Amino acid sequence: MTIQKIDTATTTRIEHDLLGEREVPAQAYYGVHTLRAVENFPISGTAIGIYPDLIQALACIKEAAARANHDLGLLDAVRADAIVRACRELRAGRLHEQFVVDVIQGGAGTSTNMNANEVIANRALELLGHAKGEYQHLHPNDHVNLSQSTNDVYPTALKLAAHFGILRLVEAMTVLRRSFERKATEFADVLKMGRTQLQDAVPMTLGQEFSTYATMLGEDEERLREAVALVHEINLGGTAIGTGITAHPEYAARVREHLAQVTGIALVTAPNLIEATQDCGAFVQLSGVLKRVAVKLSKTCNDLRLLSSGPRAGLGEINLPPMQAGSSIMPGKVNPVIPEVVNQIAFEVIGNDITVSFAAEAGQLQLNAFEPIIAHSLFKSVTHLRNGCLTLAERCVDGITANREHLSALVRDSIGVVTALNPYIGYKQATAVAREAHATGGSVYRIVLDKGLLTQAQLDHLLRPEALTTPQVLDLAGR
Amino acid sequence: MTIQKIDTATTTRIEHDLLGEREVPAQAYYGVHTLRAVENFPISGTAIGIYPDLIQALACIKEAAARANHDLGLLDAVRADAIVRACRELRAGRLHEQFVVDVIQGGAGTSTNMNANEVIANRALELLGHAKGEYQHLHPNDHVNLSQSTNDVYPTALKLAAHFGILRLVEAMTVLRRSFERKATEFADVLKMGRTQLQDAVPMTLGQEFSTYATMLGEDEERLREAVALVHEINLGGTAIGTGITAHPEYAARVREHLAQVTGIALVTAPNLIEATQDCGAFVQLSGVLKRVAVKLSKTCNDLRLLSSGPRAGLGEINLPPMQAGSSIMPGKVNPVIPEVVNQIAFEVIGNDITVSFAAEAGQLQLNAFEPIIAHSLFKSVTHLRNGCLTLAERCVDGITANREHLSALVRDSIGVVTALNPYIGYKQATAVAREAHATGGSVYRIVLDKGLLTQAQLDHLLRPEALTTPQVLDLAGR
Amino acid sequence: MTIQKIDTATTTRIEHDLLGEREVPAQAYYGVHTLRAVENFPISGTAIGIYPDLIQALACIKEAAARANHDLGLLDAVRADAIVRACRELRAGRLHEQFVVDVIQGGAGTSTNMNANEVIANRALELLGHAKGEYQHLHPNDHVNLSQSTNDVYPTALKLAAHFGILRLVEAMTVLRRSFERKATEFADVLKMGRTQLQDAVPMTLGQEFSTYATMLGEDEERLREAVALVHEINLGGTAIGTGITAHPEYAARVREHLAQVTGIALVTAPNLIEATQDCGAFVQLSGVLKRVAVKLSKTCNDLRLLSSGPRAGLGEINLPPMQAGSSIMPGKVNPVIPEVVNQIAFEVIGNDITVSFAAEAGQLQLNAFEPIIAHSLFKSVTHLRNGCLTLAERCVDGITANREHLSALVRDSIGVVTALNPYIGYKQATAVAREAHATGGSVYRIVLDKGLLTQAQLDHLLRPEALTTPQVLDLAGR
Amino acid sequence: MTIQKIDTATTTRIEHDLLGEREVPAQAYYGVHTLRAVENFPISGTAIGIYPDLIQALACIKEAAARANHDLGLLDAVRADAIVRACRELRAGRLHEQFVVDVIQGGAGTSTNMNANEVIANRALELLGHAKGEYQHLHPNDHVNLSQSTNDVYPTALKLAAHFGILRLVEAMTVLRRSFERKATEFADVLKMGRTQLQDAVPMTLGQEFSTYATMLGEDEERLREAVALVHEINLGGTAIGTGITAHPEYAARVREHLAQVTGIALVTAPNLIEATQDCGAFVQLSGVLKRVAVKLSKTCNDLRLLSSGPRAGLGEINLPPMQAGSSIMPGKVNPVIPEVVNQIAFEVIGNDITVSFAAEAGQLQLNAFEPIIAHSLFKSVTHLRNGCLTLAERCVDGITANREHLSALVRDSIGVVTALNPYIGYKQATAVAREAHATGGSVYRIVLDKGLLTQAQLDHLLRPEALTTPQVLDLAGR
Repeated sequence: MTIQKIDTATTTRIEHDLLGEREVPAQAYYGVHTLRAVENFPISGTAIGIYPDLIQALACIKEAAARANHDLGLLDAVRADAIVRACRELRAGRLHEQFVVDVIQGGAGTSTNMNANEVIANRALELLGHAKGEYQHLHPNDHVNLSQSTNDVYPTALKLAAHFGILRLVEAMTVLRRSFERKATEFADVLKMGRTQLQDAVPMTLGQEFSTYATMLGEDEERLREAVALVHEINLGGTAIGTGITAHPEYAARVREHLAQVTGIALVTAPNLIEATQDCGAFVQLSGVLKRVAVKLSKTCNDLRLLSSGPRAGLGEINLPPMQAGSSIMPGKVNPVIPEVVNQIAFEVIGNDITVSFAAEAGQLQLNAFEPIIAHSLFKSVTHLRNGCLTLAERCVDGITANREHLSALVRDSIGVVTALNPYIGYKQATAVAREAHATGGSVYRIVLDKGLLTQAQLDHLLRPEALTTPQVLDLAGR
Repeated sequence: MTIQKIDTATTTRIEHDLLGEREVPAQAYYGVHTLRAVENFPISGTAIGIYPDLIQALACIKEAAARANHDLGLLDAVRADAIVRACRELRAGRLHEQFVVDVIQGGAGTSTNMNANEVIANRALELLGHAKGEYQHLHPNDHVNLSQSTNDVYPTALKLAAHFGILRLVEAMTVLRRSFERKATEFADVLKMGRTQLQDAVPMTLGQEFSTYATMLGEDEERLREAVALVHEINLGGTAIGTGITAHPEYAARVREHLAQVTGIALVTAPNLIEATQDCGAFVQLSGVLKRVAVKLSKTCNDLRLLSSGPRAGLGEINLPPMQAGSSIMPGKVNPVIPEVVNQIAFEVIGNDITVSFAAEAGQLQLNAFEPIIAHSLFKSVTHLRNGCLTLAERCVDGITANREHLSALVRDSIGVVTALNPYIGYKQATAVAREAHATGGSVYRIVLDKGLLTQAQLDHLLRPEALTTPQVLDLAGR
Repeated sequence: MTIQKIDTATTTRIEHDLLGEREVPAQAYYGVHTLRAVENFPISGTAIGIYPDLIQALACIKEAAARANHDLGLLDAVRADAIVRACRELRAGRLHEQFVVDVIQGGAGTSTNMNANEVIANRALELLGHAKGEYQHLHPNDHVNLSQSTNDVYPTALKLAAHFGILRLVEAMTVLRRSFERKATEFADVLKMGRTQLQDAVPMTLGQEFSTYATMLGEDEERLREAVALVHEINLGGTAIGTGITAHPEYAARVREHLAQVTGIALVTAPNLIEATQDCGAFVQLSGVLKRVAVKLSKTCNDLRLLSSGPRAGLGEINLPPMQAGSSIMPGKVNPVIPEVVNQIAFEVIGNDITVSFAAEAGQLQLNAFEPIIAHSLFKSVTHLRNGCLTLAERCVDGITANREHLSALVRDSIGVVTALNPYIGYKQATAVAREAHATGGSVYRIVLDKGLLTQAQLDHLLRPEALTTPQVLDLAGR
Repeated sequence: MTIQKIDTATTTRIEHDLLGEREVPAQAYYGVHTLRAVENFPISGTAIGIYPDLIQALACIKEAAARANHDLGLLDAVRADAIVRACRELRAGRLHEQFVVDVIQGGAGTSTNMNANEVIANRALELLGHAKGEYQHLHPNDHVNLSQSTNDVYPTALKLAAHFGILRLVEAMTVLRRSFERKATEFADVLKMGRTQLQDAVPMTLGQEFSTYATMLGEDEERLREAVALVHEINLGGTAIGTGITAHPEYAARVREHLAQVTGIALVTAPNLIEATQDCGAFVQLSGVLKRVAVKLSKTCNDLRLLSSGPRAGLGEINLPPMQAGSSIMPGKVNPVIPEVVNQIAFEVIGNDITVSFAAEAGQLQLNAFEPIIAHSLFKSVTHLRNGCLTLAERCVDGITANREHLSALVRDSIGVVTALNPYIGYKQATAVAREAHATGGSVYRIVLDKGLLTQAQLDHLLRPEALTTPQVLDLAGR
């Protein structure tokens, strides 16, 4: 969603703020504060409306606040109702294009909060039969923002939006995990060489290898579910710096209750609201867990690219489904473009984490002024990781096939199988066999047989796939 | 520029690639390769068309290649001319909306190169009186991409785009530098306390302080100009891996010459094309220099926010022009929103640098597959820094005023001025004076006078502004 | 602990490995594998012996393995007992100087594991009455390393060491938290101005401000306790790649049981040992949480430095205890050196986190070869953070005093108190008062009184400290 | 160099500072300021004496300052001479163990400067026949530190130390580059398959591949040489904040001249000393260039590990010399431990760069208080990179061998050679050949021959090594 040029040729209405009066496009739901912000922050060209989770989170908060204010006798039923109805339209996805402030903005989120206040006020005014801008009937600050400050609304909105986004990311990770699980089952009987430090190690199955990618995702899903709990602690009711100045003593509890009901999330009010107002720890940690997800996804994609390298001069163990022609110059070349794009998402997420760390560290005294870039970084990470997981599942993993013959031959010809004979022929003899195999290019099987160290029956018994890929009791039953 | 949904309801044409045939919207200038890429990379929702510098760079290269191929007898005049005309339209800013591949993409830039080949081919076909898709007359690969590979075109395009972008960034920095220089002149006579480690140190002028921001920018402009030279080394002619396979031996020299002429840049062909094809060093270093710019801009903004803290409980030395109301809850509050947004740009640039480092390190063997995210990160950094510099100059620095009275009082009342007396009354006496001033809250001037360490005339001489703010020969002429 | 030069002039013994035979200093407990590693990795000059937690963790594992092997009939009682006794000496802090491999090493930790195997074997040999190097009686690999691989021993050792280190860090954080809590109590009645975006906001108490630092630490202690649970999942029994090749099927359960008993930690064996062998997720997340701690400690130190800025030209709200002379040139200057050193520790920890991310991402296939630098980075972060917390508590926070008069004057003179009058005089009137105060330099109290907006009694009631610093029911009882 | 416990049992002398009097070990060359610093910063346990370049740089500066002060009549010949002699001892490597302050320290380097002042003063006192501590004859501050401030001495010392360190790093890189160059020559005739995106691309020689590593290093050497020029701009003479307070107007020029002569470096005095005193741009950029070196070294090591993967189930193109046994469990296994350790150094350097960025950004107003961690990070990066380069050259690259048969077979059997036939048989025919080869496992040579597309003579001509690995004029002379 790019920021629209504000067409000053259209009819306008006049609005006022601290700096004086300004013309606002007559049809705009946003007002003068939003307009100033659009002019002040011509940075990225991307508007906050690009993040529906954030707009919906703001609408949930404004609805809950209106209800709490009404409960406490601070807001009459007519205005409260109009605000709630406007909020529900936003929650249903309407008017998001009215959220026009740049995602990179100064002012600790004030402009985003003001954008919400103004859009909701103007829509509520319409619902009440008034014209936009007739704030004497319902005011962005006095009514929509009542009992609130940007400093408690904005961090709470970021937390709700993070909650929504993370849950959707977890869903996408589950899709990818299941894709890997299906492959783990499909490849359960495909014997292959395991590798450590890129050197041939000992045998395993391709199913075992793919199971690790699934397990890894499963763990990360759990870690994200744990981390998401960190954003359930909110600071609504703290107002400007957490002391609750201008707020009714019961407001914090009431608004939390309403917000929990509106969102279905088990929210809690922070025990120390002053600390909660200035603290970005939850975002730093969440970003750290997203980085963990990114690091491991990238490792998985590195493996997929490595295992599918070839077709002839690489490892050539698996085939990724071809998704597009790979080269304009090399006929028939196909590249692992899907893992490659996921690698790049991971690199972006790791960079975003540093941005979050910097912004969090730079907060001073009673407020962190740099939450907008924290939000932008987190939302990018969450969204791109989600898109990456789905793409990887659907356009790559689902279509992976194994080169069974080749994999099996590599095990048969490997020196590494000698490890399995270690307990029977001894480390010293095993080393001698390995050395001879390496020097002559011969097979371990043949050398052991020729040297009379084990019988063919014993060898066949010890080198059967299940013996190579699971722990075994010392056993030469086959003798 | 968001990626447009491809409307399959419209009329279509059929195109073919390695994977089979596909319908492409009839009116689209891009073709089947682009279409596959759009489907394969639904990641960020932002299309490469958002970067005009990149599209123009690709057009410059394709034009230069067509000319070189024609020179070498590899491309007939009719086709060469049509390609050149199509490229010039792109360079004039047309058809950028046809560049629809996601900025985050797999495939080492192949999809971006293909997008350019297809758009240019189809526009050239039209110019020749053919319909889009009639590639038998002029082919995206065989003619537009002739003698080229993504692996030499794409890095070269990134370098040209970086060149264009950096030069525009330098211009914006110059605007900001001049703004600081004007303030340095304006404040040349405003005496104030300098601070080290946030503790009162010794006097200086506010003009000296603002001059440091200007000097810092001037140095960074120079560093960027040096760094931009790194991207003037190109690898056109190396084709797939730098060995020049399928390219005419004279092609590299010819295309460089044409490209230098088209762009006005003194390009050189890398001496080792194989190394140049896989190397991302120039991008890593460029990103490192951008990080330097970001770090120092952020430091400057930190200072501006600190010096303007208050109005009553802060340092209160300078006033930033108010740009928008700062709070919905605190009447009259105004915040330093412009420096704040520049801080956040800086944090983003530092994060982008980590993304670039990761992507560069991950390159393997003869090519770095992760150049698209390097490009996206660099272009974001360059663009946002530029916007930040202009915004900071115009919406903040230009309007800064000094609280001269307050600054002057702080120097008069400071203990730090005793440092200037050090050479005359000795370190030991000076320490005693400092200690007494600190304990009693008294003034250094008065204490020195009372103790009879110096006469009033001497004191007035030694503590005159120019004596406090520049090196001095030991001199008690005033005795 | 720097790496000692190996003095080849002393008497030596001969040892053998894959590459041939080598002289080892006769008195050394380490052997030929360690010697090769020392020669191969002359990088940092710092030996792994610098980390007692790591040596003790290795000793715990080797003891548990010896016991498990004995249980399963794989190791006789004499050898098992000698190994256990040697391990207990290491756990008691002896022979750590024999751990001489560089902290930065190749080989996925093999050299560290070998160093442990050799030192334990040679000490066990001595305990059995043999000479060092008489491995025919008790062998580093065949007996000390029995049923093990570096690939399950080393990650497990890192996890145990991280557990020990983190717990000690948490203790230090508790010390610092209590220090802040004491100050929060001491300053509970000190009214001051709160600040957002470095601009005067609304009043609070200095006690509230210091309570946020305590709360923040308390939260981070909890996060660390949660994160430490991640390192309780171990992969012992997986051997080379997690398939358990050469290990007895009951070994994994037995060794876990013994290790849990030896360490007192509720360890669990990973459900997917192949995944666990290659996975570094726990380290990435732990490092991310340490970064969170660092970011917030740094923010706290930034605040302390800001609040104590001055003495005359800064905020001057609090005084840090002087710890050393601040300047050789400026008499009487004292600097906030303790917060400054903690800031720098934080910056190092954030850098270490990037190193960990890079190393984790670079793991390939069945093993991460880069765990040594992960370990080094984590151990540095944990140790330095711990030292930083203790230093900050003892050498700074404990001695902080408040400038009560000055703080109180700032509130009295502030414009921000008008926010508290907002609900009574209205936003519009409040803004007018704020504007007049700003323009004339007058006090809000006086202007409100002069304008007759409230009576003196009402003002005194509304502006009493508890009314300014906690939520209030609308109330003009004082009228 | 670990920090020594200060043994208070030994005889002591009394020294004084701002905080009172303290016993200092009688034999210590350092004094009370150093002692306080050792107590204040018990962080890493590593003393600044670990960096000889830094100690020597400090000695150079103190010598130059003594000479300049003498020239200007500010310091008598006897004291000046004693100081110069003491400095020369430090420059010769003596007394470095007296530099005991922790590498991680608060105070903007004051403690390091004081440590130098005290050691030099006490050694000079001895040379003059006085006892240590008899500062009435020659004082650490009044004489050794005359005309100086930590704020100009310390940054200058860091720059000199960086200069020395970088030059030694460049030497090590040259050693490594030559090693790669020798291999490039040795392997000049070894044909192999090039790979892009890990997929088989087109042929090249192994010599060409190794030449890229040499070229890359050569470029980075140049970049370092350029970057080192950034640290030749010094701020001596600026004293406390760059205004030159207490310094003689001619001092800056004199001390620069002497320092240039002492060090042999073409130093220049910064044109804006106030900016130079607060600016860390040179360090940020230097660190960025070191990161570039690290990124590329890591990429090279990744390639070496990939190309030597195997021995049987990997690419198996080259063999790294075995340096140590690779596994305690897998007989005969050898791992690429030397590239692995260099990878890890690179990861550390990239992390260090983030630390430098954070510390540089955190500088406030007239000074950056965080230069000590910048210094520590830079010095680690420089030292470890140097050690890594030498180790990689001597313990890995020098001993690399090629599996010529295997490499040649991969080219012969490749599908990628069809690219070379493209211009002769057309892209469409070439694609059909590639597809058939892929489907049937057949060879391109045979299929082209069977289809009668080219004669055997033509094929042999087009597929000769030099035709495959360099640009060619279209030519079917062999027809």
